[in-house]
Amino acid sequence: MSATIGRTRWALPDGHIPAWSHGPEPEMTSHESVCILNAGETEAHVEITVFFSDRAPAGPYRITVASKRTRHIRFNDLKDPEMIPRGIDYASIIQSDVPIVVQQTRLDSRQAQNALISTIAYSG
Amino acid sequence: MSATIGRTRWALPDGHIPAWSHGPEPEMTSHESVCILNAGETEAHVEITVFFSDRAPAGPYRITVASKRTRHIRFNDLKDPEMIPRGIDYASIIQSDVPIVVQQTRLDSRQAQNALISTIAYSG
Amino acid sequence: MSATIGRTRWALPDGHIPAWSHGPEPEMTSHESVCILNAGETEAHVEITVFFSDRAPAGPYRITVASKRTRHIRFNDLKDPEMIPRGIDYASIIQSDVPIVVQQTRLDSRQAQNALISTIAYSG
Amino acid sequence: MSATIGRTRWALPDGHIPAWSHGPEPEMTSHESVCILNAGETEAHVEITVFFSDRAPAGPYRITVASKRTRHIRFNDLKDPEMIPRGIDYASIIQSDVPIVVQQTRLDSRQAQNALISTIAYSG
Repeated sequence: MSATIGRTRWALPDGHIPAWSHGPEPEMTSHESVCILNAGETEAHVEITVFFSDRAPAGPYRITVASKRTRHIRFNDLKDPEMIPRGIDYASIIQSDVPIVVQQTRLDSRQAQNALISTIAYSG
Repeated sequence: MSATIGRTRWALPDGHIPAWSHGPEPEMTSHESVCILNAGETEAHVEITVFFSDRAPAGPYRITVASKRTRHIRFNDLKDPEMIPRGIDYASIIQSDVPIVVQQTRLDSRQAQNALISTIAYSG
Repeated sequence: MSATIGRTRWALPDGHIPAWSHGPEPEMTSHESVCILNAGETEAHVEITVFFSDRAPAGPYRITVASKRTRHIRFNDLKDPEMIPRGIDYASIIQSDVPIVVQQTRLDSRQAQNALISTIAYSG
Repeated sequence: MSATIGRTRWALPDGHIPAWSHGPEPEMTSHESVCILNAGETEAHVEITVFFSDRAPAGPYRITVASKRTRHIRFNDLKDPEMIPRGIDYASIIQSDVPIVVQQTRLDSRQAQNALISTIAYSG
């Protein structure tokens, strides 16, 4: 049985890094993560494109996920080619050269107690 | 590679705008959003139909999403042809003339700390 | 274009009605809901079967969803053929004679501030 | 009609057991659960493989789910062949010899009020 699972193209329409935070850093810093599983035998070369409501897309942001590894990447930490502003609406497409699985998670600590969301991304 | 991703027909069975809110507006106002990504080359003409438990559907609510843009729209803000009442159960179908991807997110601030849900919509 | 969308068979592996609650009833009562959209032209006859970890399944619970209507039903309120205990693990299958779309939402108010989850059910 | 529903291979990219907790045990202990429904006529033999960011995968963790039963298993409780550390990023693949349905849920009680996430796993 092959270890490979997933698709090469994923989308996340609801991107948002909450504009402020409560609680100890870095755990409780408001953030949004894209979590990637590469269960296959080959290193994955991933490109993330970020879409906005009022300007042209940013990216690609290039990420490598080794064979049989996972990476959970905060959109907060993406810096090249440009940072993603806090408190605005965005969306993203995650494109890989080998099958991967993608899940989104956001921690919102704008109020004193954190709130969380998570969903498997759309693959198409 | 084409930039297009998605489907033209999406459904969200659990619609609900919480009836009251805590915290600063507009960020902490209880709301439900439909987040649409149009990654393609053509403007998307989207129609939302809202279903209720005890009356005929409302709509269509017409929305345009430009090529390579995202729009995060609060159901709270839909006014034409009619507003959606707070505190009742509804559902929605999102229909587009070109492929889009749809995600739902709700912020519920009825208690002092906000709670969040999010899911990719059903495409069929 | 036909208004119909969905599938006839859905599953929700993580069923759980939290055992206690904080806050005003009925809004803040801990509960789990199955939200059904019947966008089609024909009334849907739905049967829910509930699975447990240590006993035979319960049900079917019979529900009707009119054409072009949604129903958001609390598992808390299912009584025939038997109630679902609070604080235990269960799962459910939702079977319909016409296509429907199903989403699960849980409100957990065991602590003073409510937490929420939601996901589109699995259709197969 | 067959009672069987589901797939034999599922993935969850965002695994994380929060590193600390508030509130009464075991309900409010921070945890992550994999919820499995086996609606079929045959016992399911399930193997979970856990992937990390910086080391080889762990497992398989072997679980049995009886016919027409559900099991909600905390990753916290997996001990053989090794425990999963708290506070680190992981991912998982759930493989079964018969069709099952898989949903992930996490309770995060690092702050005084719990937060929850849940999603149907990716099946591929």
